Amino acid sequence: MTFNISPPDGGDDASIQAHIDSRLKPPGSLGTLETTAASLVRILGPSRTAIESPVMLLFAGDHGVAAEGVSIVEPSITHLMVHHFLAGTASINVFCRQADLALKVIDCGTLKAHEPHPQLVSQRLGEMTAPFHREPAMTLEQLDTAFDNSRRLIDELHADGCNLIALGEMGIGNTTSASALMAALTHLPFEMCIGAGSGVTPTIMKRKQEIVQLGLQRHAQALLDPQSTLAALGGFEIASMVGAILAAAEKGMVVLVDGFITTVAALCACRLAPQARGYLIFSHCGDERGHRPLLDQLEAVPLLHMGLRLGEGSGAALALPLLRSALAFYHEMASLDDAGLTL
Amino acid sequence: MTFNISPPDGGDDASIQAHIDSRLKPPGSLGTLETTAASLVRILGPSRTAIESPVMLLFAGDHGVAAEGVSIVEPSITHLMVHHFLAGTASINVFCRQADLALKVIDCGTLKAHEPHPQLVSQRLGEMTAPFHREPAMTLEQLDTAFDNSRRLIDELHADGCNLIALGEMGIGNTTSASALMAALTHLPFEMCIGAGSGVTPTIMKRKQEIVQLGLQRHAQALLDPQSTLAALGGFEIASMVGAILAAAEKGMVVLVDGFITTVAALCACRLAPQARGYLIFSHCGDERGHRPLLDQLEAVPLLHMGLRLGEGSGAALALPLLRSALAFYHEMASLDDAGLTL
Repeated sequence: MTFNISPPDGGDDASIQAHIDSRLKPPGSLGTLETTAASLVRILGPSRTAIESPVMLLFAGDHGVAAEGVSIVEPSITHLMVHHFLAGTASINVFCRQADLALKVIDCGTLKAHEPHPQLVSQRLGEMTAPFHREPAMTLEQLDTAFDNSRRLIDELHADGCNLIALGEMGIGNTTSASALMAALTHLPFEMCIGAGSGVTPTIMKRKQEIVQLGLQRHAQALLDPQSTLAALGGFEIASMVGAILAAAEKGMVVLVDGFITTVAALCACRLAPQARGYLIFSHCGDERGHRPLLDQLEAVPLLHMGLRLGEGSGAALALPLLRSALAFYHEMASLDDAGLTL
Repeated sequence: MTFNISPPDGGDDASIQAHIDSRLKPPGSLGTLETTAASLVRILGPSRTAIESPVMLLFAGDHGVAAEGVSIVEPSITHLMVHHFLAGTASINVFCRQADLALKVIDCGTLKAHEPHPQLVSQRLGEMTAPFHREPAMTLEQLDTAFDNSRRLIDELHADGCNLIALGEMGIGNTTSASALMAALTHLPFEMCIGAGSGVTPTIMKRKQEIVQLGLQRHAQALLDPQSTLAALGGFEIASMVGAILAAAEKGMVVLVDGFITTVAALCACRLAPQARGYLIFSHCGDERGHRPLLDQLEAVPLLHMGLRLGEGSGAALALPLLRSALAFYHEMASLDDAGLTL
């Protein structure tokens, strides 16, 4: 499947920057809110002055490697958390309500399927990925299906007037998969790519490192190409996120990235289609060890630094009000000219 | 004037922390949002589950030292900015609208008075402070009047159901006054307390340092006591903010602190009444040189790190949605028990 992505064309950088610098304030005094405003205007153009019908897409999937002792909790927790997302009782529900952000939970393939629910989208690719230290996590056909499914989802949201998607994820074992993808795509030492996830013991940490190393060795050939890398080491939810990012970029929508796992999906998307980078806004830098070097690889300057390490899209939901404020200052503030000033 | 401030009594630290740790998430995974939730619950108590009728108080005042070449802009800019605050066209107006935060502008004494306006509160102590490198910035009687005025204002807001005030400020020359106060109260080297303000040249920076040094030398006797320190080196808007902080703490309200100048006011308040500290939440660490060590003196862990250096209360307004989300996760999330989990 190919994506036809053009760079954002909402305005040239110089005139967007000139507009920001001519607002009634010392130049640069709004810090990263200014760079965020510039990114939003580049994507949305000068006449779309609001974030419209934003949706949090929370991708869930289970992982073959979760049975290998890489997490403090059981794989069944993925299913349990999806239950809470649909019941409205998890962190992300609270933050979505506060941010006036709709929530959809995408079942990309978990151990147990869920009953139909208005907020649940079923895009199941299986019950879980294969354990990637022994075989490819998924087939190239499954990856293609993931992309197809996500494109259909994004097309619907776009048709409904949505111009921003936020990314969230849930999947026990998915920091292990994300760490392997990061190591494979960046060639950084694998230790730098592996962190504590939701909280691990030294034993679990060692096991995570072993699994990642085995995966990198086993799939050395596949790792020469980003698409087969994603199939070899990815998760169903990660692959589906990559598809969503690429489809959203194709449609000219803003993609608000959350923590480590979603940032790895962003990296995969940019390796498949570098033009996708212009549609990404990074909500936060969390506490996971690999997150900072990963953001550096993407030349990303995230908005929040709050020591978050929950996932679920929580950082993206918390950052959304800052995006609204960025767009609002760009469009609503007086200019220095209006005030008869030069600075 | 004395303030009768008791420490926050909304709950003991251990049971508040136990409630946070028992939510459906890995312990600590919401980072500084968790400490913020704890602070809010300590202040508001377990039954007040929302921030109610929050108000941004933007204190404006002019400074005698502004005529001494310590700023890139003219003192008349204070008046001009107040005009824009009342017209709704400045940064802080945009951010207050986005955060559903009411705005009041407090004229604490500016070169020119303003026409009456529904959002303007007149608490004028004069046209500007005296230049503090030559004489005390204000008399102890003026300081007392500032405290009286602010207590009356806070009492009215409290009676109207407001449980949070956010602090903002405007006053050309006020980083010079704030730097002098910081140096006097912390005994840190004065160079560490003086930064670029809204943007200065090396010549202006040198002049700021001279003025602060002269002020510290001239008022050495007064600097033995925090109240006379504030009168000697303060601004009308800074003194009025200190009064507002103390009055809000007395009423058990949350005080949301903005950037460098308002953090200096917070430090003054805590030196006058250490119990006030428990009512303060720090919205951000900005780019002004002294802000980081100043926050350290207050053992403050701010929410945002966005390179802001605008003042006006902008960081406080931008952080308010995070406070709402902190309080909401505390009260609305399921517990690990509900989910049948232990972590």
